[in-house]
Amino acid sequence: MPAYNPVELILAKRSGQALDADQIGYFIDNYMTGNIPDYQMSALLMAVCFKGLNDAETAALTEAYLASGQTLAFPEVPPVGDKHSTGGVGDKISLMLAPILASLGMRVPMISGRGLGHTGGTLDKLEAIPGFRTQFGLREFQQLVEKHGCALVGQSEELVPADKRIYALRDVTATVESPGLITASIMSKKIAEGARHLAIDLKVGSGAFMPDLDRAHELARLLVQTGANFGQKVRVLFSNMNSPLGLAVGNGLEMIEAIEYLKGNPLRDTAILTTELCSQLLLSSGMAKDADDAIAQIDAAVKSGQALRKLEEIIIAQGGDAQVLEDYSRLGSARHKLPILAESAGYVHSIDARAIGYALVRVKAGRMKVTDALDYGAGALLMPKVGTKLEVGEPIGEIHCNDLVAGNEAVKLVRAAYSIRPESCPPEDLLLGSL
Amino acid sequence: MPAYNPVELILAKRSGQALDADQIGYFIDNYMTGNIPDYQMSALLMAVCFKGLNDAETAALTEAYLASGQTLAFPEVPPVGDKHSTGGVGDKISLMLAPILASLGMRVPMISGRGLGHTGGTLDKLEAIPGFRTQFGLREFQQLVEKHGCALVGQSEELVPADKRIYALRDVTATVESPGLITASIMSKKIAEGARHLAIDLKVGSGAFMPDLDRAHELARLLVQTGANFGQKVRVLFSNMNSPLGLAVGNGLEMIEAIEYLKGNPLRDTAILTTELCSQLLLSSGMAKDADDAIAQIDAAVKSGQALRKLEEIIIAQGGDAQVLEDYSRLGSARHKLPILAESAGYVHSIDARAIGYALVRVKAGRMKVTDALDYGAGALLMPKVGTKLEVGEPIGEIHCNDLVAGNEAVKLVRAAYSIRPESCPPEDLLLGSL
Repeated sequence: MPAYNPVELILAKRSGQALDADQIGYFIDNYMTGNIPDYQMSALLMAVCFKGLNDAETAALTEAYLASGQTLAFPEVPPVGDKHSTGGVGDKISLMLAPILASLGMRVPMISGRGLGHTGGTLDKLEAIPGFRTQFGLREFQQLVEKHGCALVGQSEELVPADKRIYALRDVTATVESPGLITASIMSKKIAEGARHLAIDLKVGSGAFMPDLDRAHELARLLVQTGANFGQKVRVLFSNMNSPLGLAVGNGLEMIEAIEYLKGNPLRDTAILTTELCSQLLLSSGMAKDADDAIAQIDAAVKSGQALRKLEEIIIAQGGDAQVLEDYSRLGSARHKLPILAESAGYVHSIDARAIGYALVRVKAGRMKVTDALDYGAGALLMPKVGTKLEVGEPIGEIHCNDLVAGNEAVKLVRAAYSIRPESCPPEDLLLGSL
Repeated sequence: MPAYNPVELILAKRSGQALDADQIGYFIDNYMTGNIPDYQMSALLMAVCFKGLNDAETAALTEAYLASGQTLAFPEVPPVGDKHSTGGVGDKISLMLAPILASLGMRVPMISGRGLGHTGGTLDKLEAIPGFRTQFGLREFQQLVEKHGCALVGQSEELVPADKRIYALRDVTATVESPGLITASIMSKKIAEGARHLAIDLKVGSGAFMPDLDRAHELARLLVQTGANFGQKVRVLFSNMNSPLGLAVGNGLEMIEAIEYLKGNPLRDTAILTTELCSQLLLSSGMAKDADDAIAQIDAAVKSGQALRKLEEIIIAQGGDAQVLEDYSRLGSARHKLPILAESAGYVHSIDARAIGYALVRVKAGRMKVTDALDYGAGALLMPKVGTKLEVGEPIGEIHCNDLVAGNEAVKLVRAAYSIRPESCPPEDLLLGSL
């Protein structure tokens, strides 16, 4: 491989030139070995935020990420699938989707993340289960998937370490929002874990990092194209993140909502989204012959209890206390349950889901820094969606907390996140299209 | 001062928002104390390269640079003036200008730089004089200026250290070319050294970092405005850098050319530029009543020998061997003098001055890294300018070197930098305007 001058590569990108695969590989490899320092990487990342990465550059960056670590491979049969969400408020879909699909025979090697800022993370929700481990070496992870059809784990050090380091750098240098960088980060992990079918839940709206559908489409196209470059079938669903998803926001509370779902008590919006994402993967993998078949299989997996039993199997396999399925108090407790009451009558016109996420950081349902501790019992139950009619004094929901002062602050902030106006407002669609 | 989140400040600049003086001060101060790491600074710098700094932001950055260190102040009388060049090939104007103006009674506290890449640096040329010191503490520097009317020194650690650190970071992160960043870097040093009158030689053309006059005008406006914010009168001269300046390129050779100038043997183009820049400062400071008066004073300073005696005084004051004024062999020697001969007849249509600068790095007349050693005797004498007529085999000039292999390479590269075509070509103006 030729030796490049990092400054010239940064300058080329700053000038709007495309870098070739050798140049991108050189930059990533030398960053990982310490020859290229953080400050040169962050300058390149910022230049990429302005000048973008084309399809070939995005594929090359994904390849460089993959080459920085090890990868998993599973046999062709049974199909290997996974889901990725770009992050929302109250998004507990993975907790249902993984056991449902695994119970239907799909392999689901799911690598998830932690919550940061206003968004939650699947790993944090699972860790509300006492004893539940999410950190495994790559071989252990593979064995869990082979034995149980599914494992829900964090990114190991062995898997795409370049993405891990560069993601952390992007987070502190305001270089997160770039379609090419986002794509390489998502796709490298999902390719490295061995998934051949991927459903991406691309959130659009106030609680998502992607505020409008046009930019979401651009990102979706790049995600599908990048997957195709590595033989992975990618389907992207655009979903509305103007309202928090389901009823619960907070780690233990969301875990309870997921368990209730698998016991046959799903909420309307989580059911729509879970079913759609599961369907896409069953269709992509050929496990369902058409949409009706897919829906029937998903319904049967829940109604028969086999998905719940799969969740129990996963919990036990990963060291968790399976009694949480019957005794929700084991998922964390809250000394205080503070009602959030509407102060004016009318219709909910908008919900600032991002503000709700940040409000709940105060009661430790979320975190601002990766090192912040969580309170698994803290969170909120929030009933209204955009379009819901409310009377004065009617409950919007309640804050669960152990710190009364922080809880009262959260009550005010969450209430302020609901824009209530006298004129009526139609409910919004949850599914906004797909690619 | 309020505590800001550095990531939010980077994001604001990335989004095209202007930062206020508090925010810019916070970022620079915390960078200097180590609270903000290099990688956040380089991300901000790259965002600035794309989104720019407005006049107020440029003034605030200049102020923050100034606040990072100490500043000098001289009495109002005699006037304090200095010159800055944005860097060229063969540019030894400071070596004449400083002694001329000081011999006329102006205080010239000149802080200069070193050569890097294709451009030379005044400090390197001075250090071709055995014993000549360029590193002084701030108080020593002030005393030298007060005693001798002039000192020619490098930037001390006490003076605008923020610029020093950030300039080094810009150099390795491809964030040099930004009018706001360039302005704050130049102006902070020139304000901190106490100059009240400043002439800027803004080079335009193949050998300069500024390729066209439009962008040069934008930078000039910002330089003048920023000076005005700090009570400094700034005049900008646009000069042609499509041909190397004078005859000599290389440290010892340029020192000889400067001494010859002060002995009354100036070359045409260096005389035009030296006279114009000296005139601007004599007029700005009120030391000359009009242009004719200024030119008469400058001519008298050279013809009388008083400028040469001032150079001798400066050399002695800064520890140098004043015998170099008579014995040029003390300024370095070259074992080989290799002729560069024209391979075709015709007129010089263009000269790639940048390529000449880089070619001479091979014989150690320049350096690629700040730690590279120089050979003071190495360089080139180059006669033709754009428009000069050459016959086949006529000398373009000669390479002076101590390494024959490198010298022969330089011969080829320098010859290739001259585009010679049969059709005639008018000579170019050296002075392109002023602001």
